[in-house]
Amino acid sequence: MAKLTQLIDNEVFWAYATYTTIVLLKMMLMSPVTAYFRITRKAFANPEDTASLGKGESAKKFLRTDPDVERVRRGHLNDLENIVPFLGIGLLYTLCGPELSSALLHFRIFAGSRILHTFAYLIPLPQPSRGLSWAVGYVVTISMAYQVLKTALYL
Amino acid sequence: MAKLTQLIDNEVFWAYATYTTIVLLKMMLMSPVTAYFRITRKAFANPEDTASLGKGESAKKFLRTDPDVERVRRGHLNDLENIVPFLGIGLLYTLCGPELSSALLHFRIFAGSRILHTFAYLIPLPQPSRGLSWAVGYVVTISMAYQVLKTALYL
Amino acid sequence: MAKLTQLIDNEVFWAYATYTTIVLLKMMLMSPVTAYFRITRKAFANPEDTASLGKGESAKKFLRTDPDVERVRRGHLNDLENIVPFLGIGLLYTLCGPELSSALLHFRIFAGSRILHTFAYLIPLPQPSRGLSWAVGYVVTISMAYQVLKTALYL
Repeated sequence: MAKLTQLIDNEVFWAYATYTTIVLLKMMLMSPVTAYFRITRKAFANPEDTASLGKGESAKKFLRTDPDVERVRRGHLNDLENIVPFLGIGLLYTLCGPELSSALLHFRIFAGSRILHTFAYLIPLPQPSRGLSWAVGYVVTISMAYQVLKTALYL
Repeated sequence: MAKLTQLIDNEVFWAYATYTTIVLLKMMLMSPVTAYFRITRKAFANPEDTASLGKGESAKKFLRTDPDVERVRRGHLNDLENIVPFLGIGLLYTLCGPELSSALLHFRIFAGSRILHTFAYLIPLPQPSRGLSWAVGYVVTISMAYQVLKTALYL
Repeated sequence: MAKLTQLIDNEVFWAYATYTTIVLLKMMLMSPVTAYFRITRKAFANPEDTASLGKGESAKKFLRTDPDVERVRRGHLNDLENIVPFLGIGLLYTLCGPELSSALLHFRIFAGSRILHTFAYLIPLPQPSRGLSWAVGYVVTISMAYQVLKTALYL
């Protein structure tokens, strides 16, 4: 057990663990938000989900798409598309031993950009709010990828 | 090489490696299941996939959505949305040095919940089977996230 | 800091870091490609994205799906479905201490297969180009999963 607890005895790793957990929890929050909109808008994807709303034809009308539900689902997919690269590249960057201040800057800006992106998507805010918040997180991830390749390139 | 093989000399890590590999393989299984339904239901998304079924207009009719195909695809996306947080938070939880018994409990319940979720989605079972199996895995992931933040919080 | 920099002093880990960063960057590239097609095809998903193209009804007609945009989006989702398992299983495989030559073979073939898959999807090349390039990466991931379970199985 000692080895693993020693590995984590590193401030950059703590920071990575903290911010990764925060952005993953934020992404997970999209599931209950989707469920909330599906229930309040009565817009479901599966026949078995509408069983409690009526029988036969009267339930079928709830098998439909709703703009608010689709908006949350697009936000969730955008999270997946951007947080998966952060998860992988961020871990590799952490293991490359960056300066704590530099690592904290990367992690904080990324987490902030994804939280802003979610608000910009769900409220929604006028563009380019959503575009910019997406781009900031994207550039942070590329900056970490550059550090990884500079340190570890082995083709 | 020694360092890495020593890192893995840890039962919690073995358990994480085993259950993560199982749930990722289960998720990967959704791809051939999708292909199976696309072929048997003759419902494709890409014109080049229908080339062997006929030419011109006769092939175009196979460019359509099918309820069974869409059901598998929703199950696959739900796997991504839930297994990605498990992958990241579970690794961080493992590195925080939890008790083996507690870690095994988390990993086993999560893997079981995702396997049940797939059966509930594909058969499909009446609700709340799918909802409950999803919720169990969700709560397990949040429990691990809480342990990570309690151990490593560094903002 | 020493611990982490020693961990990375391992050629298999460098190779994993390099190829994982490459495939994640390739996946990230799908976002600007999607944006390019959305803008050139004038096909958007969100009303706020069409605000600069006109007011009211004249902007609404740009809220539509376009075959080229949907093609890129399917390629992006296929990346997620296949690169997430590589990210997790590849890391566990790396930590199981494989031979460098064997690990390089796995990582190179996987990265090559995903790059070919993207070209096969976006050009598009006739089938079975896309199917085969997908299958090669799939089999490589299963081969690594087998090594992980053989080394670390702990149920």
